[in-house]
Amino acid sequence: MAELNDDFQKRFRTALEENDETEIKSMLLSLHYADLADLLERQSPDKRVELIEIIRGELNPGMLAELDDTILEQLAAQVTTDEMASALALLDTDDAVDVVEELPEAEQKVVLEKLPRDNRLLIEESLSFPADSAGRLMQPRVVSMPLRTSVGEAIDNLRNRHDLPSDFFDIFLVDLENMPVGSVPLGRVMSSQRHIKLENIMLKDMKLVPVTMDQEDVAFIFRQRDLTSAPVVNSHGQLIGVITIDDIVDVIHEEHEEDIMRLAGVGEEDDLYDAVVKTTMSRFSWLLLHLICAMTAAYVISLFQVQIEQLVVLAVLMPVVATMGGAASVQALTVSVRGIAMKEVNPSNTIRTIGKEAMVGLLNGLIFALMISIISWFWFGSVALGIVIAMAIMINLFVAGLSGSALPILLQKMGYDPAVASSAFLTSITDIVGFYVFLGLGAIVLL
Amino acid sequence: MAELNDDFQKRFRTALEENDETEIKSMLLSLHYADLADLLERQSPDKRVELIEIIRGELNPGMLAELDDTILEQLAAQVTTDEMASALALLDTDDAVDVVEELPEAEQKVVLEKLPRDNRLLIEESLSFPADSAGRLMQPRVVSMPLRTSVGEAIDNLRNRHDLPSDFFDIFLVDLENMPVGSVPLGRVMSSQRHIKLENIMLKDMKLVPVTMDQEDVAFIFRQRDLTSAPVVNSHGQLIGVITIDDIVDVIHEEHEEDIMRLAGVGEEDDLYDAVVKTTMSRFSWLLLHLICAMTAAYVISLFQVQIEQLVVLAVLMPVVATMGGAASVQALTVSVRGIAMKEVNPSNTIRTIGKEAMVGLLNGLIFALMISIISWFWFGSVALGIVIAMAIMINLFVAGLSGSALPILLQKMGYDPAVASSAFLTSITDIVGFYVFLGLGAIVLL
Repeated sequence: MAELNDDFQKRFRTALEENDETEIKSMLLSLHYADLADLLERQSPDKRVELIEIIRGELNPGMLAELDDTILEQLAAQVTTDEMASALALLDTDDAVDVVEELPEAEQKVVLEKLPRDNRLLIEESLSFPADSAGRLMQPRVVSMPLRTSVGEAIDNLRNRHDLPSDFFDIFLVDLENMPVGSVPLGRVMSSQRHIKLENIMLKDMKLVPVTMDQEDVAFIFRQRDLTSAPVVNSHGQLIGVITIDDIVDVIHEEHEEDIMRLAGVGEEDDLYDAVVKTTMSRFSWLLLHLICAMTAAYVISLFQVQIEQLVVLAVLMPVVATMGGAASVQALTVSVRGIAMKEVNPSNTIRTIGKEAMVGLLNGLIFALMISIISWFWFGSVALGIVIAMAIMINLFVAGLSGSALPILLQKMGYDPAVASSAFLTSITDIVGFYVFLGLGAIVLL
Repeated sequence: MAELNDDFQKRFRTALEENDETEIKSMLLSLHYADLADLLERQSPDKRVELIEIIRGELNPGMLAELDDTILEQLAAQVTTDEMASALALLDTDDAVDVVEELPEAEQKVVLEKLPRDNRLLIEESLSFPADSAGRLMQPRVVSMPLRTSVGEAIDNLRNRHDLPSDFFDIFLVDLENMPVGSVPLGRVMSSQRHIKLENIMLKDMKLVPVTMDQEDVAFIFRQRDLTSAPVVNSHGQLIGVITIDDIVDVIHEEHEEDIMRLAGVGEEDDLYDAVVKTTMSRFSWLLLHLICAMTAAYVISLFQVQIEQLVVLAVLMPVVATMGGAASVQALTVSVRGIAMKEVNPSNTIRTIGKEAMVGLLNGLIFALMISIISWFWFGSVALGIVIAMAIMINLFVAGLSGSALPILLQKMGYDPAVASSAFLTSITDIVGFYVFLGLGAIVLL
């Protein structure tokens, strides 16, 4: 198998330049499916169409599950439903579901009908669960055995089964009603004597995952408990599937991606491969929100037009107060949003968390108040001006710490995502407070 | 095993209020080690000291590996090195290394000396590799067998070994020089007949992890290839350990954490459990950087004091131009930083990526220029003012897209972390460009 290293990429560029289709095809097919997906993603859209055309007859199923959503849609539009179906038939159910759920609804139906009956039924069952739920992530082909099975019987049973998933790490033990009672890691099975009963070496402190549980909560359980697989149960508590860690790694990435993107006001769908117009649209609403906030801040300034006219240095220094408040509030916000995501913030320490951030804001406020007042005293030669900006900075950094930590917690309590729109609102708060306090104090003290 | 649910927490609070030490102890010991770690983390520092005092005699080793760094340091200061050593002796080497590397150096030495010789040597070997390298993550007890082993021999061998790690998912096959040539997932071993040779069912496209590889690159390989374990090799290519996915999940979290924190200018060590003064210090340098940037922007404004005095509406609207530019540049920055982290940005698409962001900035610039010019025309009744602010917004959003995407790529090329300090510099760029263009155009067109 070829490595996607610098040498490969150089040879590949040469093959592309020379338009050597045989060489291009053999190079593409020599790659690991994950590397092939990466290589396709990096091409320009036109080049990508050409490359897909070259390999469409031998579509690598593994690659489909690895492709970015945007690119998968393009590929689906280019290949026939027959080509898609024959690739999907070779995937494990959970990976096939990942691919199918990205297809347009009409195409989903056609492709599913072309799959072998067994695969189709399993995929359709998975798709019947809500998006982003455990049901979508799980592999319905689960390796389970009755409680009384011995190590020897387990091994014999596995040797005779033909429907094993390609990856499994545990044998789940179930009672007569098919409810899971324990799990045995394969390493334990293999290192135990044949006559030993699995129930004597099973782990009992399993976390059962309800099939409707949100994938974010599933990921939290996996991370917290260092799990490699977890049993999925239906509403009667019966074992209907298993979720493995490889799918969870993808979920963890998705959720982090969401957090970081939302903090910056970038839509979740916004990735490098989207087209310019689509990206422009997805960024628009965030910028609109900022416009509304900025206009509110401008209104606050407009209340002090007379004072600014009299003392134009107020206009020079007012953005400093706003900028410092904005930077401090984003710091508090980020820590708070991460704390919520990691379930470190909870009712028992909410007050302490907010109190700490307010204190940090106040302390830094004191330090920077001192620095800025000295700078502006030297710059404009006015002690009074230094005092005014010092007070404004101190108040604004205190407000920044307080609101930066409290707002996401409040949003979370009200059932909203704490990361969405928080930073726009916060910057708005620190802008308004900053301008109002600085210009207001300036008007009182200096004029 | 007890669940850390609302009911448990209520009963626990009651036990705390009643100071019922027996009940508190039995409740703490009934928890899963990961839940116990969570519960301790959520307490106030004083309460935590009390709780640790209650359980220090029966320190749960698993819990140590789960504790947040700050809390682990506190705990280490409170318990004796004997108590610490006897807990560490029960952990797998990779987890024990996680704990030991957080201890103060003097204490590390004392604790290590109190460990059984075998454990000590393995841990010391791990610690001899650079921090954040594969060597620190790996489990040196690796399950490897000669190429020619049959399934039956493998199972017999495992049944007779006593040094197996608590979790393992693959058997690695090695040649006579102990170089890995393939891996066999346990599921494959168990579902194959006894006489089959492992080399006939092994996976050959393994990714070998050099022991000095950075953990971020290791995590990338795991995610890209959907691995559950990978062999670690020394400089001679010999198998010396194995890294399993559960450790990688923690690395992925750490790396994401770093990204999101650095974007907001929050130090990596900054977590909810740090004390106020430590947090204040860690935020200081970021705010200082913002102060320098803000003062530069203030200087730009000061160049236009005469114009502002004549037309104070310039002071009212100038923050709008800066705010919009700042928001747009953070969007472009975040997408670019994520693209670099996910290795989606690379030499073959750098120009296209930056070009796309510049186009997106220009397009949104056009839309918002139109909106803002209409608003300011209605508000201040001046068409010329509308035109001036429209042009300034358009230029600033274009610059925001261009610099927001280019700066992190440039930093990366120069060998710096693309997330560090980027957003401060960018806001500075859009502030300066915004003020300069708006006030400059205003001076020319309106006065």
